[in-house]
Amino acid sequence: MRIVMKFGGSSLASAIHIRRAADLIARQRAEGDDVVVVVSAQGDTTDDLIEKAREITEEPCGREKDMLLCCGEQMSMALMAMQLEAMGCPAVSLCGWQAGIRTESRHGDARILKVEPDRVIRALEEGRVAVVAGFQGIDGTGELTTLGRGGSDTTAVALAAALGADACRIYTDVSGVYSADPRVVERARVHREISYDEMLEMAALGAKVLHSRAVELAREHNVRVEVCSTFSPQSGGTALGSECGHGQPVRGITCDDRVDMVTVAGLGAGPETCGLFNRLADSGVSIDVIIRSPGEQPRGGVVSFSVSAGDRETVRAVLNGCREELGFSAFSVQTDMAKVSVVGVGMSDGCGVAAKMLRALQEGDLRPQYITTGELRISVILPKTCASRAVRLIHSAFFEE
Amino acid sequence: MRIVMKFGGSSLASAIHIRRAADLIARQRAEGDDVVVVVSAQGDTTDDLIEKAREITEEPCGREKDMLLCCGEQMSMALMAMQLEAMGCPAVSLCGWQAGIRTESRHGDARILKVEPDRVIRALEEGRVAVVAGFQGIDGTGELTTLGRGGSDTTAVALAAALGADACRIYTDVSGVYSADPRVVERARVHREISYDEMLEMAALGAKVLHSRAVELAREHNVRVEVCSTFSPQSGGTALGSECGHGQPVRGITCDDRVDMVTVAGLGAGPETCGLFNRLADSGVSIDVIIRSPGEQPRGGVVSFSVSAGDRETVRAVLNGCREELGFSAFSVQTDMAKVSVVGVGMSDGCGVAAKMLRALQEGDLRPQYITTGELRISVILPKTCASRAVRLIHSAFFEE
Repeated sequence: MRIVMKFGGSSLASAIHIRRAADLIARQRAEGDDVVVVVSAQGDTTDDLIEKAREITEEPCGREKDMLLCCGEQMSMALMAMQLEAMGCPAVSLCGWQAGIRTESRHGDARILKVEPDRVIRALEEGRVAVVAGFQGIDGTGELTTLGRGGSDTTAVALAAALGADACRIYTDVSGVYSADPRVVERARVHREISYDEMLEMAALGAKVLHSRAVELAREHNVRVEVCSTFSPQSGGTALGSECGHGQPVRGITCDDRVDMVTVAGLGAGPETCGLFNRLADSGVSIDVIIRSPGEQPRGGVVSFSVSAGDRETVRAVLNGCREELGFSAFSVQTDMAKVSVVGVGMSDGCGVAAKMLRALQEGDLRPQYITTGELRISVILPKTCASRAVRLIHSAFFEE
Repeated sequence: MRIVMKFGGSSLASAIHIRRAADLIARQRAEGDDVVVVVSAQGDTTDDLIEKAREITEEPCGREKDMLLCCGEQMSMALMAMQLEAMGCPAVSLCGWQAGIRTESRHGDARILKVEPDRVIRALEEGRVAVVAGFQGIDGTGELTTLGRGGSDTTAVALAAALGADACRIYTDVSGVYSADPRVVERARVHREISYDEMLEMAALGAKVLHSRAVELAREHNVRVEVCSTFSPQSGGTALGSECGHGQPVRGITCDDRVDMVTVAGLGAGPETCGLFNRLADSGVSIDVIIRSPGEQPRGGVVSFSVSAGDRETVRAVLNGCREELGFSAFSVQTDMAKVSVVGVGMSDGCGVAAKMLRALQEGDLRPQYITTGELRISVILPKTCASRAVRLIHSAFFEE
């Protein structure tokens, strides 16, 4: 067997954590498997590095920020390889550029273009564990890049695909993919299996356990991904695959609590609305839930949409910049909102998921202003302060009957 | 003009320090010069990284230790380039491997074999300051290496040589090369000029301002090195060159306070003594002051020599290992000794340097047990506790009359 094992920052937070992870690795190798390890930066290292940059300047140049952040994973890969060697398990650490992680030329959020894992394969052939720094790569001109949020998961899946690995195991601080955030819902349960599509939808809607880009890559290359806990690795975790986990229409309740709702009044329904959404897309702003109420006068319509709270200033700038040209009368931003979603393959099967969801909210006296439905989800927008209660009410209706 | 500016860890200890150094760099560039910057790791970063490794294992594998330590300089180069960019001074940071620092395949103490500074030159041609990580390089197989103590000085001098720079300016926390350590001797003075040979001797005998390997490289390629203070850069500092600073027979008083004296009794004067010194050399132990007293019986002679305190355990192991074969009766190690030296070109000119030195010590009731002389120095071995007083007495005799 050939296995990629990826450890997140909380699984590597201290020397003791590194030792525990190294035990798992050495045990896997002792079973005769080829083992490639992908590591994130330890604990708060990335935040500490960002803080160091912030002491220098509020807007560090992207290239240099990448140079700085790459050190986080480089430190943890070296410590992990040291630990393995000290335990008598031959290991060699490799930076992203040494492991052949080739990316596009874009700092802070580069996509992996291809993997040329010659040195990784050489290490395996020499009987060593290859310990690869996640989250980083090199572009065509020899510049270091980073992959953005969830980047180490993406490194692990990309390496697993390039190496034809039998599995890509993501070790994290939770036991797998849950029906809801276990910190919010006490009775949340771990799925044994879940499909790529369901996982993608859950990741897009706020589930933090795996980043969408990693799931997309896994789906594209049909990599078997297993999510499990570093702290209780025997408990099984969740397997992702294309054939996984059908039968249940609803798979999870997610919550994204960094949402703003933007409302624009007096915007024409034709090219004006298109124009606005194009401007936002060009500025890198993703919009989700879109609700249009037609109004009575020709230009009396109101359009509302949700954006990530992190894009707030960009959104304001874009709207102020095109107000005159697009001729809308006013806009407002409702901050501190949350998007609570029900995710699963059974949304459009007419089995009354929406009705059940709204009834559950209603019973808790929650009346969401905005609702939207899709192939794999139904989302409502609520004030952030009600979000956890909404998740618990919905979870109880679908999973705790 | 093309200038290499090197900043040590104490000159980069915080964001404020980095800003101050960046001011010096931007000012140099504003004069129209091509500027290459070499940085050490910030403040205590290297020690912190070594401590992190020590939490994992007492004896980290050399390759992985290098991987870990390289992060120190990579972080400070990124922060420096960010700072320069934020000030509107175009800059680009380069790791050792990106700057073409090619070394031998030896971890922890690699020598630079050659410099292929294509990317550095490209950065200069684009009008940028190139900020290069000191202390690190890459070997022929693509492995990262580090250069050992004083490695960033060596990087700076090697780059200056490869780029044909007009000067290599070493910014540090002292004002230049002193006649003695200014922390010990209040009235120590800064030399305006000093020759490579004198500086080499002083570095070998304990002066910490520049590492011998950097000075050797500067002499070999005739690089003009200037040592000056980051904190008062206007005060001039010390220039090193081949034609520098003659006229004064005594140039400095140095002190190395990490010295052990080893005494071996009953060792034959012929092949036995040779054999012992060969063994020590093979184990990487440098010996300095050697004193032989013949004794009265054929095998009654005693040989004493000084070693670095850091080599103590190796020395004991070598001596225990060859005692039987070489047939000596016993050995002892006197720890906590110091070597105080007078350095200058005038030692052998018969101008009574030794007499003057011993008289100065005598007047302070210090009677060194061991004395040795060379072309460029006279050294005495004393208990560490008397070392500072000895330095002050000798400095006063030669420099404060």
